[in-house]
Amino acid sequence: MDEPEFSVRELLRARPRGPGAPVDLAAVDPRSTPGVPTGLDRAAAKRWAAERVGALAVDLAGLQEKLSASARADPAFTGRVLLVLQAMDAGGKDGTIRRVAGAMNPLGLHIRSFGPPTEEESRHDFLWRIRRALPRPGYVGVFNRSHYEDVLIARVESLVPEAVWRSRYDEINAFERGLVGEGFTLVKVFLHISPEEQLDRLTRRLDNPEKHWKYDPADVDARARWDDYRAAYADAITLCNDVNAPWYVVPADRKWYRDWAVASLLRETLAELGLAYPPANFDVNRERHRLAGAVRVGQRDRPATARGLR
Amino acid sequence: MDEPEFSVRELLRARPRGPGAPVDLAAVDPRSTPGVPTGLDRAAAKRWAAERVGALAVDLAGLQEKLSASARADPAFTGRVLLVLQAMDAGGKDGTIRRVAGAMNPLGLHIRSFGPPTEEESRHDFLWRIRRALPRPGYVGVFNRSHYEDVLIARVESLVPEAVWRSRYDEINAFERGLVGEGFTLVKVFLHISPEEQLDRLTRRLDNPEKHWKYDPADVDARARWDDYRAAYADAITLCNDVNAPWYVVPADRKWYRDWAVASLLRETLAELGLAYPPANFDVNRERHRLAGAVRVGQRDRPATARGLR
Repeated sequence: MDEPEFSVRELLRARPRGPGAPVDLAAVDPRSTPGVPTGLDRAAAKRWAAERVGALAVDLAGLQEKLSASARADPAFTGRVLLVLQAMDAGGKDGTIRRVAGAMNPLGLHIRSFGPPTEEESRHDFLWRIRRALPRPGYVGVFNRSHYEDVLIARVESLVPEAVWRSRYDEINAFERGLVGEGFTLVKVFLHISPEEQLDRLTRRLDNPEKHWKYDPADVDARARWDDYRAAYADAITLCNDVNAPWYVVPADRKWYRDWAVASLLRETLAELGLAYPPANFDVNRERHRLAGAVRVGQRDRPATARGLR
Repeated sequence: MDEPEFSVRELLRARPRGPGAPVDLAAVDPRSTPGVPTGLDRAAAKRWAAERVGALAVDLAGLQEKLSASARADPAFTGRVLLVLQAMDAGGKDGTIRRVAGAMNPLGLHIRSFGPPTEEESRHDFLWRIRRALPRPGYVGVFNRSHYEDVLIARVESLVPEAVWRSRYDEINAFERGLVGEGFTLVKVFLHISPEEQLDRLTRRLDNPEKHWKYDPADVDARARWDDYRAAYADAITLCNDVNAPWYVVPADRKWYRDWAVASLLRETLAELGLAYPPANFDVNRERHRLAGAVRVGQRDRPATARGLR
């Protein structure tokens, strides 16, 4: 695929309104489609994105293979990518994983979903279960929710005292700095939907018996605290937005745009790692010779006997 | 998709030559294509399989969603599927996972690859790392190699005394019986390639610098012991072939056949579980009402303030 003439990461990076000011989520329209050529009607814009998503999938699979290969060839290679997905309920996390991660080789994916902490998880600090779920070198990891829940639901629902969640922003920054030092490239994505779109999606889940399993009455309770969650997201994104672990705010009311945008963010991130197929760590000609010598094996093939049968 | 008029599982199930006799791998031609209509030339047979693989992918994704949904709706649901893939080097394990598991939702997949045991793994019994890698209810698990390596390479390369690997067949049977009791459905697949096909594939890896990372000189050493491995496979398949944890021998010289066959085995297995979308565990009309009441939230949406900024 040709290089795009702009950086989707630059376009979608979460930016404060000014020096020392918070990131303004209200300034990003969840129905907008930054990066898509202006002047296209909706059908043409969808077509534009769909055409690119196919090529992006091929690129992603190729880059992912180089990442896997690099780790397999060199035990000292530490590179890996971690996509952190956060959103309000029905924000499209599952769909994004199905569409974007689904384009990659499942062998090189490391996907973890974080729900309410188990009893065991609750006995440890909030980063304990996250540390245990980190991808190894060579993998593309995806976190479906993450440690950010501990400054989102934990804050809005007062699951811990304020002093506790307040101290977590610093802990998260230190943790993520550590990950970057260990070879991680973080891609933190907030899928930004409007309350109107959430209402549509939750209503559709109620209308379709095959989607009832996706519906959780607790989502309506969370919806009633929309503004509190919005403020908690704005703080998390503002306070944990290091240049080496940046947040991207992806307008996500339109699924076709969201899929294109997240695939593009991953592609740009992987492309920047400068990955290449590793050179052979063996003598190719010698191996050719050895392999030719082993042809006799095939000629010796004969009915297997199951020796040692009891 | 219409039900096929035959069972691929019946067709490919590993069968002893007679009561008490071993499974005869030499009786299965790695280039054969059981289940594909006879009388088709190679191009037509490939087309036949390719047409079906698309429909199989849709079926697999749908069945997998019902499996996930069942587990999510009911904490007492224990069902899960575990595909165990074994093969000689270059036998096509990775390609099968990419093509077959790649058709499913990555969120509901649980894929683990087993290489040489780490130092920590070596300090435990051979099933320790396997137990830690088992999928939870609702998942489709895939083992890329497995506990069977401990009666294959461990036996052929004499990594443990004979008495040790001999006792493992019983241990594996007991282990797998336990899994079935816990809700697992096992699909154990031996991808059966010929030594000629292996030679082709290894040679192609040497010929293509982008495939060098997949080439391991140790594969040639293993190739030199083809007959020993074949005998070890025949014993493993014969001795650990319980009716509730059966082996399938998939002719795998033709990749298009292998993909169709493994996808078909999984589809039949999942279909037999009788999965359905779970009924709502909430009052749908009440939720409709609550959701309508929460519309006001959208109207209250306003610029987020990043309270608590330091």
